[in-house]
Amino acid sequence: MAKRLSIGRTVFEGEIRVELITGYSKLSKNEKIKWLVDQCPDLNENFHQDLLGTEFSSREKQERFDQFSENTIGNFHIPFGVAPNFLIDGQSFAVPMVIEESSVVAAAAKSAKFWSLRGGFKTAIPSVTKRGHIYFEWDKEFSLFESFFEKQKERILNSTLDLNRNMEKRGGGILGIKLETLKSAKEPIYRIELSVNTCDAMGANYINSLLERINETIEEILPAEINSFYQPIMAILSNSTPECLVESKVSCKLSELGSVDGLTSHDFSHKFVKAVEVAKLDPSRAVTHNKGIMNGVDAVVLATGNDFRAIEASCHSYAARDGQYQSLSNAKVEGDYFEFSVRLPLALGTVGGLTKLHPLAEASLKMLGHPDARTLMSITASVGLAQNFGAIRSLITTGIQRGHMKMHLNILNQLGANKSQEELAIRYFEDKVVSFSAVQAFLQQLN
Amino acid sequence: MAKRLSIGRTVFEGEIRVELITGYSKLSKNEKIKWLVDQCPDLNENFHQDLLGTEFSSREKQERFDQFSENTIGNFHIPFGVAPNFLIDGQSFAVPMVIEESSVVAAAAKSAKFWSLRGGFKTAIPSVTKRGHIYFEWDKEFSLFESFFEKQKERILNSTLDLNRNMEKRGGGILGIKLETLKSAKEPIYRIELSVNTCDAMGANYINSLLERINETIEEILPAEINSFYQPIMAILSNSTPECLVESKVSCKLSELGSVDGLTSHDFSHKFVKAVEVAKLDPSRAVTHNKGIMNGVDAVVLATGNDFRAIEASCHSYAARDGQYQSLSNAKVEGDYFEFSVRLPLALGTVGGLTKLHPLAEASLKMLGHPDARTLMSITASVGLAQNFGAIRSLITTGIQRGHMKMHLNILNQLGANKSQEELAIRYFEDKVVSFSAVQAFLQQLN
Repeated sequence: MAKRLSIGRTVFEGEIRVELITGYSKLSKNEKIKWLVDQCPDLNENFHQDLLGTEFSSREKQERFDQFSENTIGNFHIPFGVAPNFLIDGQSFAVPMVIEESSVVAAAAKSAKFWSLRGGFKTAIPSVTKRGHIYFEWDKEFSLFESFFEKQKERILNSTLDLNRNMEKRGGGILGIKLETLKSAKEPIYRIELSVNTCDAMGANYINSLLERINETIEEILPAEINSFYQPIMAILSNSTPECLVESKVSCKLSELGSVDGLTSHDFSHKFVKAVEVAKLDPSRAVTHNKGIMNGVDAVVLATGNDFRAIEASCHSYAARDGQYQSLSNAKVEGDYFEFSVRLPLALGTVGGLTKLHPLAEASLKMLGHPDARTLMSITASVGLAQNFGAIRSLITTGIQRGHMKMHLNILNQLGANKSQEELAIRYFEDKVVSFSAVQAFLQQLN
Repeated sequence: MAKRLSIGRTVFEGEIRVELITGYSKLSKNEKIKWLVDQCPDLNENFHQDLLGTEFSSREKQERFDQFSENTIGNFHIPFGVAPNFLIDGQSFAVPMVIEESSVVAAAAKSAKFWSLRGGFKTAIPSVTKRGHIYFEWDKEFSLFESFFEKQKERILNSTLDLNRNMEKRGGGILGIKLETLKSAKEPIYRIELSVNTCDAMGANYINSLLERINETIEEILPAEINSFYQPIMAILSNSTPECLVESKVSCKLSELGSVDGLTSHDFSHKFVKAVEVAKLDPSRAVTHNKGIMNGVDAVVLATGNDFRAIEASCHSYAARDGQYQSLSNAKVEGDYFEFSVRLPLALGTVGGLTKLHPLAEASLKMLGHPDARTLMSITASVGLAQNFGAIRSLITTGIQRGHMKMHLNILNQLGANKSQEELAIRYFEDKVVSFSAVQAFLQQLN
């Protein structure tokens, strides 16, 4: 039953007439693709075939998958890889990683093995508290609201009992509620902060439901004579989770470091600590340094069906918490010990969301032995630290470019090299600086 | 030719014996998967079949794809969707978005249409400069290096001529080079900053190659008597790109806003501006607010084969540039005009990297009419702004939870509802607060 495409409204933008399509979301997947092909002269009919080629072979899986998001026309592929040999808190893991960037999985695996032979990663989780807020204006003396809130706090919290039942059974629930005033607003804005423990769930839906319920209760029970002064702006969880923290650490004696890529353990550790110091001092470097940590973190976050935008926002804002954006990791040499550590706010879940719904996320969690949220936090932070170790190691020894370009064949692919040309090129550039134009020149002289 | 799995070394971690695998990266894909299944009691043989079911149907595509990253065992799927009706600088786009989170594409499409009828998105790109640095220590009076650097600057830059050839042909290249001292290091650390224009490429390889060449040249031409004072720490591009900026803006008369979800244009715009003000004042809110912008940005970044970790790092650190992490977007009412805008540092590429290698990224760029990097910056920032508009609109009217939970059927999927139960549930919760436990209770009473 094909629906007619209805071009809804025509608007004029200067000289240009723009046609809007209405009801696109209601078209079938095939019709959506057909419309696109009609719109874009460059998409030929193979496009349709190509998109079908991206789907799960199981019909049932694909149908479920299509409900994750809206207006889907296919499945976008990202390489699904594995970094074996992670030893974390005495347990061994082969970690699933989803990432399109070359060298990341290789670097993680290399660092994992290096540290497995030196005691592995040790982690700690100081706290797992998450927060949400109701923001509102109040058009009278605020003491009126304050005394209402103090008196009715119990009743307000009790109104969420039905939402809390499951979470409390699992040992979580509401930890606290408090009233605050936002600093330096021209006209005062207030917030109610709710602290919660969401156990193994990321908890966004749970927190938002609690907040909206609390807001409704307040509107309901505020006495008539002051009810209209309460002007809620919004109610929402916070992706800033500075109290949902995990630390991961590696350390060993300098003598155990051995010589690393041609540097003595003394020179390597000195240069390593300097490189981290640069990322403490210079925000321009800190951004790239932390990006490297997130290469590892996000790969695990994606693989396990978690939300990488939430984790990115949380970690980078945490890096700026002291007023200057800086490195999330720390390195030091104390006595004859080298220590490298990271502290990250990672609000991850292992139940709910897509964790069980995405067939590959489910497989990732199986590969990790069905971790609880805390264990997943430990694994993820350790992969971030491994990644950071690998990047700094390359930077201070061979240089990122030499190591990096060697690894990835993208450049050869792009230049249309065949297998034998690829091998010749890799051998030739073994001890040379790789650049696009140098590889291009090399390939040209082969022809 | 099957390779034997070699368990390389056995290490002891307290009581636990850990077996490391060596040579995992050299195994074939099948052997890699087999090893995983052997390791994880929970992965049965279907796992192998499932992974094969994720691959491209074209052998050639899959082989190329497998070279993007290391240790790949399959392709991880993320929904590939489309948000039509984006009117940006007078041009109409159906924007490809890759995102696993529900409601994001729907919200982008809804905001796109809303603003297409009100003039669309207007963008500007003040500058596209990117930077890279060489960090080093200098063990003598620094004036010695300074005078060397001033005298030899020309020669140092000339040593990169072969690397610059292609970029200069396209109108890019090196814009400047300068010497700086890092503030507040105990022992002084110095940096050389290189500014470049990388045209339509993201440019990471190019910048890193330049920096490593410059470092080599300095080491080569520093006079023998001061050569050993130069101690390079590292050379690397910066993902902090505060001078590679794009602004996107929507605006209209208050009267053109009309009534939005039950609020008059006056009340809507007042509440909207307040909501953005909260994200200026309160970092806890700003993180979530910007996360919403990045939902849109990253979806386009992924779809076009760009690196979302780089874009995340750049944007969030930019949000902290004034010492307090805050909103990346701004809203105001001036006279009878409503204006909403965002400014983002987006170092995107439309050539190089995976843009042409990933078959679906290539399709995305076709859908967008082969944009140059500037146009892709404009599109991406506009999708971020649309996303932010949609999120704030929901938050200040129906509430995120009511809107959000309605949209996504994940919760019903998770609870194992069948099609008819789904429909009943959606109808029942039309005007109610959706929570996991409420939906669970509803489904139970259906049985």
